[in-house]
Amino acid sequence: MTQPLKIALAGLGTVGAGVIKLLGENAALIERRAGRPIEIIAVSARDRTRDRGVDLSRFAWVDDAGELSHRDDVDAVVELIGGSDGPALTIARAALTNGKAFVTANKAMIAHHGLELAATAEKTGAALKYEAAVAGGIPVIKGLREGAAANEIGHVYGILNGTCNYILTAMEEAGRDFADVLAEAQALGYAEADPSFDIDGVDAAHKLSILASLAFGTTIDFDAVAITGIRHIIAADIAEAAALGFRVRLVGFGEAGPKGLFQRVHPCLVPIGHPLAHVVGSLNAVVAEGNYVGRLIFQGRGAGEGPTASAVVADLVDIARGEYGPAFAMPVASLARLAPAPAGERNGRAYLRFTVADRPGVLAEITAAMRDAGVSIESLIQRGAAADGSVLLVMVTHECPESSVTDALARLQGSQSLIGKPMLMHILDV
Amino acid sequence: MTQPLKIALAGLGTVGAGVIKLLGENAALIERRAGRPIEIIAVSARDRTRDRGVDLSRFAWVDDAGELSHRDDVDAVVELIGGSDGPALTIARAALTNGKAFVTANKAMIAHHGLELAATAEKTGAALKYEAAVAGGIPVIKGLREGAAANEIGHVYGILNGTCNYILTAMEEAGRDFADVLAEAQALGYAEADPSFDIDGVDAAHKLSILASLAFGTTIDFDAVAITGIRHIIAADIAEAAALGFRVRLVGFGEAGPKGLFQRVHPCLVPIGHPLAHVVGSLNAVVAEGNYVGRLIFQGRGAGEGPTASAVVADLVDIARGEYGPAFAMPVASLARLAPAPAGERNGRAYLRFTVADRPGVLAEITAAMRDAGVSIESLIQRGAAADGSVLLVMVTHECPESSVTDALARLQGSQSLIGKPMLMHILDV
Repeated sequence: MTQPLKIALAGLGTVGAGVIKLLGENAALIERRAGRPIEIIAVSARDRTRDRGVDLSRFAWVDDAGELSHRDDVDAVVELIGGSDGPALTIARAALTNGKAFVTANKAMIAHHGLELAATAEKTGAALKYEAAVAGGIPVIKGLREGAAANEIGHVYGILNGTCNYILTAMEEAGRDFADVLAEAQALGYAEADPSFDIDGVDAAHKLSILASLAFGTTIDFDAVAITGIRHIIAADIAEAAALGFRVRLVGFGEAGPKGLFQRVHPCLVPIGHPLAHVVGSLNAVVAEGNYVGRLIFQGRGAGEGPTASAVVADLVDIARGEYGPAFAMPVASLARLAPAPAGERNGRAYLRFTVADRPGVLAEITAAMRDAGVSIESLIQRGAAADGSVLLVMVTHECPESSVTDALARLQGSQSLIGKPMLMHILDV
Repeated sequence: MTQPLKIALAGLGTVGAGVIKLLGENAALIERRAGRPIEIIAVSARDRTRDRGVDLSRFAWVDDAGELSHRDDVDAVVELIGGSDGPALTIARAALTNGKAFVTANKAMIAHHGLELAATAEKTGAALKYEAAVAGGIPVIKGLREGAAANEIGHVYGILNGTCNYILTAMEEAGRDFADVLAEAQALGYAEADPSFDIDGVDAAHKLSILASLAFGTTIDFDAVAITGIRHIIAADIAEAAALGFRVRLVGFGEAGPKGLFQRVHPCLVPIGHPLAHVVGSLNAVVAEGNYVGRLIFQGRGAGEGPTASAVVADLVDIARGEYGPAFAMPVASLARLAPAPAGERNGRAYLRFTVADRPGVLAEITAAMRDAGVSIESLIQRGAAADGSVLLVMVTHECPESSVTDALARLQGSQSLIGKPMLMHILDV
């Protein structure tokens, strides 16, 4: 075991550079913990000349990242290129087929091709590890795969996208509007130039589908995740939610039960007493509720150079120690295939915000639609007319089937009383 | 790998019964996750006749728990007897010497004899696992040993005793006094009849010494933990702390640096914005700050049948999977021996509460002692005379060496102005 673990790095962006720095700075400690050194042998990236703030001269440079999976001097390939298909997938398949350990931070690829890759890894006995793919530096893959392994897990949920949480908490603190905060986040580098993957919930959905597989022992079913992003949240939603005792968070939520597998990413109202209400800025947090352990919470930094590199190297340490097994906690053939559970049969409370015309009968029309759909109202706030003459009407329903709320909104569709689309957010009731 | 993992259980108290229930109820799931069944073969406890709510007839009953470690049909021994020495230690030594895996929830034994046991495990290649010994169901041993393995950890700290946290948050909510809440907690079964191990901080210190070893790669040094319990906290401390923006928590805190290893369990003031301030009731939480991952937080239920059984069985799943290695993350010989770091050189803010006589010159005497010791006062609250004529004086100091605060208190020792001993609590500044 004193032979070093020899690795190749594909992709030298922020995280790749972070892995190089970490393996250098913490080398002595890692060798003690891993039982042997972890050494980078070869690297590959698109642009050889770019200054990444790290010395690459010690490593073999390979122009075609695909070659890394075929080198005899490499034990483990670390893929930090990204993208669900393309070069990342080619490298993954080749590494695992060749019996090399494979470590990735690529949530999109794992969400779409994780089972195929795990099946290959099983065949060749190679390690497939992806701690960095979900919640950055937080060891939540390990927490579910191993730490909570004794439990039947009822639901798993959390704040899985730091960009969205940064935006929502900035809106909360400053009473600012979404577009305004997004622009600032982009300027500061907290949000991508094309922020769609983050703010429309796709990134969180990738992560949720991976967590659900681990928590419930089911196959990954990314396509079954219902996804709503945070684009349509206005400052007033956050203010009114606060007045009612809630904070708004983008939550990925998974639940397995007799009705199947339910997976949803959506902005929802979190009661102020719930731990997720206190997760601020770009932090991530994952909650798992097990039938013996109760509620477990993992919190930390979900992205960025240091935390992501930390998770990648933790995977490498596991590999160096020989402490790894099936990527999804059990052989792929043992994972259950659950049908998607319909949202409509779920019971819960909902937040609704209407912008309405300031004229007689509007409130009666809306409340009648609620009544006719069987939705009972727990609280209602009406704020006097704005400069443009519109009125804000916010309500929280009593617990009822989600289909009833959908029904009530359908009854109001096309109503002349409504200005713009109503906003619906569910309330986190676990 | 389809051979079952055959285990023997020593100790059938609450946790032992929980392990039996869990292995029964979640058997199918555990077999999928572990890759093979986990089967109890034999059990042992003091009283065979006691009704534990579980069917023991399927297992061999052994009167002398010591025999379990010598049975040929047993792969792993689970020790749930407790106590740092005595039968627990005998069983542990025998199991590991015989090459059997050994799982325990026994924090006292690990704190005192963990290194010896780990050395034996290394010799025979046996697994030594103790996830349940720290923070109950929270996978924090795994989180530090593996999840954060890539990091140099600056400090590790947390709320490690659920009984104390229950008492402190009950005092906080109801403004009640310590003795009153303790009596209630005992009546409800949340505190032991002899609560000393919990409320005097010894239990938390056992856990802290284990966490420190994992976090810093150092030998366990329980004797070097400075321990202060929560007996001397009065309702007014909690109320005044709240008025100043703090909550009082019993925190186990460890730090490794050039001055050595610093370990302390003490009630301290946690700023309201710090995540530990929101850990309420009997919950536990552990924070680790790594040089790459940043701040990681693990939270959940730190004791009780279900959570502790969850952690014990997680260890068994690791063993069944063959995913285990050195108990303290590295061979015992690789653990560093750090000298204890002196508290006095630490810088920080402090909370001081004096009960004083209501007469001229008292405030001058106390503030002069502060000045002469070089302690500068950030906030001061004086509450008018109580029925007995005493006055409450509470202050928070600016950051200064702890030795200066100690010096100030020494200067006031024997003063006729003070009624009773002053209360000193440090402020959590990380």
